[in-house]
Amino acid sequence: MADIRYAGALMQWDQETYMPPKGATSRGRQIATLSETAHQLFTEQYTGDLITELLQRTNLTAKQKKNVQLSHEDYTKQHKYNSQFVRKMAEVVNKSFHSWIEARKANDFRVFAPDLSILIEMKKQEADLLGYKEHRYDALLGEHDKGSTVKKVDEVFNTVRQPLKKILESIQKKTQVDDHFLYQHFPKEKQWAFGMELLKQAGYDFDAGRQDISEHPFSVSFNSNDVRITTRINETDLTSMTWSCIHELGHAFYEQGLPAEEYGLPLGEAISYTIHESQSRLWENHVGRSAVFCESWIPLFHSYFPDQLKNISAEELYKAINKVQPSLIRTEADELTYHFHVMIRYELEKQLLENNLTTSDIPGFWNEAYAKDLGVIVPDDKNGCLQDVHWSHGSFGYFATYSLGSFYASQFYTTATHEIPLLEENLRQRQTFSLLQWLRNQVHSHGRIFTSDELCGRITGEGLNVQHFIRYLIEKYGVIYNIDELKPER
Amino acid sequence: MADIRYAGALMQWDQETYMPPKGATSRGRQIATLSETAHQLFTEQYTGDLITELLQRTNLTAKQKKNVQLSHEDYTKQHKYNSQFVRKMAEVVNKSFHSWIEARKANDFRVFAPDLSILIEMKKQEADLLGYKEHRYDALLGEHDKGSTVKKVDEVFNTVRQPLKKILESIQKKTQVDDHFLYQHFPKEKQWAFGMELLKQAGYDFDAGRQDISEHPFSVSFNSNDVRITTRINETDLTSMTWSCIHELGHAFYEQGLPAEEYGLPLGEAISYTIHESQSRLWENHVGRSAVFCESWIPLFHSYFPDQLKNISAEELYKAINKVQPSLIRTEADELTYHFHVMIRYELEKQLLENNLTTSDIPGFWNEAYAKDLGVIVPDDKNGCLQDVHWSHGSFGYFATYSLGSFYASQFYTTATHEIPLLEENLRQRQTFSLLQWLRNQVHSHGRIFTSDELCGRITGEGLNVQHFIRYLIEKYGVIYNIDELKPER
Repeated sequence: MADIRYAGALMQWDQETYMPPKGATSRGRQIATLSETAHQLFTEQYTGDLITELLQRTNLTAKQKKNVQLSHEDYTKQHKYNSQFVRKMAEVVNKSFHSWIEARKANDFRVFAPDLSILIEMKKQEADLLGYKEHRYDALLGEHDKGSTVKKVDEVFNTVRQPLKKILESIQKKTQVDDHFLYQHFPKEKQWAFGMELLKQAGYDFDAGRQDISEHPFSVSFNSNDVRITTRINETDLTSMTWSCIHELGHAFYEQGLPAEEYGLPLGEAISYTIHESQSRLWENHVGRSAVFCESWIPLFHSYFPDQLKNISAEELYKAINKVQPSLIRTEADELTYHFHVMIRYELEKQLLENNLTTSDIPGFWNEAYAKDLGVIVPDDKNGCLQDVHWSHGSFGYFATYSLGSFYASQFYTTATHEIPLLEENLRQRQTFSLLQWLRNQVHSHGRIFTSDELCGRITGEGLNVQHFIRYLIEKYGVIYNIDELKPER
Repeated sequence: MADIRYAGALMQWDQETYMPPKGATSRGRQIATLSETAHQLFTEQYTGDLITELLQRTNLTAKQKKNVQLSHEDYTKQHKYNSQFVRKMAEVVNKSFHSWIEARKANDFRVFAPDLSILIEMKKQEADLLGYKEHRYDALLGEHDKGSTVKKVDEVFNTVRQPLKKILESIQKKTQVDDHFLYQHFPKEKQWAFGMELLKQAGYDFDAGRQDISEHPFSVSFNSNDVRITTRINETDLTSMTWSCIHELGHAFYEQGLPAEEYGLPLGEAISYTIHESQSRLWENHVGRSAVFCESWIPLFHSYFPDQLKNISAEELYKAINKVQPSLIRTEADELTYHFHVMIRYELEKQLLENNLTTSDIPGFWNEAYAKDLGVIVPDDKNGCLQDVHWSHGSFGYFATYSLGSFYASQFYTTATHEIPLLEENLRQRQTFSLLQWLRNQVHSHGRIFTSDELCGRITGEGLNVQHFIRYLIEKYGVIYNIDELKPER
């Protein structure tokens, strides 16, 4: 089953990187067949009997036992879908993806709306098939992070919303930092070479992975010895490629660190989308957007872009890449305002799933929320509710993992700084090994043994606590923006 | 089933082009799973019942009927294998491929021999499973070209052997042509750009295909709208990349010309390896190594390699790329001596399958045959019996298709020159469309409706007749080498 799933993943990777355009139609159906086949094999009576038999064994190691338990959970869950539903979903998703592309071309949400409506109805059916206690949306949240619920996510978002607003207001009163030098002309080839060098020096194992170009950066794994990432290059923006490289590297580190001997088994898989995101955000933000990173990597920046970054100091770089400014596009947002983008999508999905909103309400809801929470005017759908690919992929309940992942990242990183005495010193010398090794031990090597919450407790001694993230932002922006009212709280 | 098979093909393409080295182990097993799964699905009782039911239908179109008949044939044949055998074969092949790589590194056939022995035993089993009338080897020949037998192939090779020897002797008495200018330094990037331009101008549809680099050139199809080719670049040899591009283009034209609406069905598939090779050889040799090609493309050669090919005329180019010289490596052989390479391998395989030779006899047999037929001394295994990948892929009964394909190519091309009045004129203007269109109509669009022999009869009015090929060589080399005793026979 894993072999077939990974074949599907390769077909998807290829679709985003090298597939010639006319190949798209057959590819859609090929991917649908593979997901249907893997699903059929997994939900066969034979598989169920095997798992039942294994559940009763008394001579299993702890890891084997866990593999059997988790397989049983997965089996029970997968059994709630029938193959027709899985195939229909794959086909609807394929169609939706293409109409999303068309809608973006036309810059008109209405082109996407009919397929999206069908998809949302199917997601409701899916939630009902999966079952839930309080909220229908819980079923979809749980798909991305076991045990995640509206109740829990609401609570986290409610805790974080006001502090973030307060920090944002303080920043907006201060002089804005200068980041114009990041938006000069940076030639494609130079950026590519710089990104590759960065990945190499940061420890990405190119014998067990590669990087390619795609329209949207992503990471994908076919086994822990073949974990690939992609990036995109904007010639008038150095940040897009650079920090997306580091972000995807974090995802790839996780997958490369999963135990190879558990291939195809739950313990060879990542815990959740949330913990996956904690790894990418940890590397992107806590390492990649740190003062130490800027100090230690500025020579490399200078050597690749001597003209564009002439006379730019590490400190100027640090301030520029941490500039806070409400904006329209989630993927380009800073570490603070980013979470408003996520909270808006989360709220919107919740309302759609609970039948409080319909597809046609999306642009209105979206634009109002952006005005209210971020103070920005959405000029068109492309810069508004058509910006993210997720819905067209059938991903509902996904966005919350971006914020929760960031919050976990802060909490993990705080612990890392205590437990790795030479961490800052290592990073100052561009040595990422101690941190990577710590993450391998603490996170990667466990596969799905723990839930997100359990893992967090195990590493940090407490459940998810967003105060770490808030404190991190206060410390960072207090210094960068020289904000007195923030500084004392340190 | 087709979707799964094509997923396996993508995994193979990826393995040869972009896969990071450590990915190899899991990839081997993933490919094995996909072939086992496709085989299982196809040989299920359900499939058999379906085919039986369809065979009895009276309301099918002629094409539908043919699809059912051929599916029945395929089903009956595939049913002779069990899934364990298929999986074991895939695994043995994977292991053999790696030991072949190792053997080449060590330049020692003995490193490959143990796995090859296992493979040969499995191929004997396979032949016995498939069944045959006269020769065990017939079963494997038939796998690559339905109806092909030792008797038929022996007859063809016996007809062609002496005439080829005679032409070769005549050539060897004459002054050798000068081809040194083809073996200067031709930078990689320039060659790549030249090859891509060549493919573009020759009509390869890059919206339905692509070219990449691999160690050994090949073509692969995932549907007729996604047909890919690969090439390799030798910086001190312009011919290797150039004519392998044209060769693979011929294969790709065939696959791109298969009817898209027959996807996954026999009529959406190529007839045989032999007819596939007839397409690649037709483009490579009858078009790409023609005087007209040299005349019409020499400006492009000059514009990409102005220094290396300075003052080289079309005629000099024509002579150089058609130089006849016995050599060690099949893939670098000229159009004449090439067939001795094939005949030696064919004979060797036949003897191995008939138990007249064992694996350990291979190097001795090989080296003697090369001395006898080609007059060359094989210095080591890498330049001898380790040169071709086929055996390590489990391909036995394949080589004959190279020669038979070439002979069909001659016969088809002779007909094409009669049926396309402006063919030479078109090619002189670098217009390949009329020939491609003719091949689309005559060959590509039929899928597997006809056998190789039937197709040949349909196009040329007779079965395979090697006299066309002999006459073609005589005409070509009579002029190039200025051989009087050959000229009168024209």
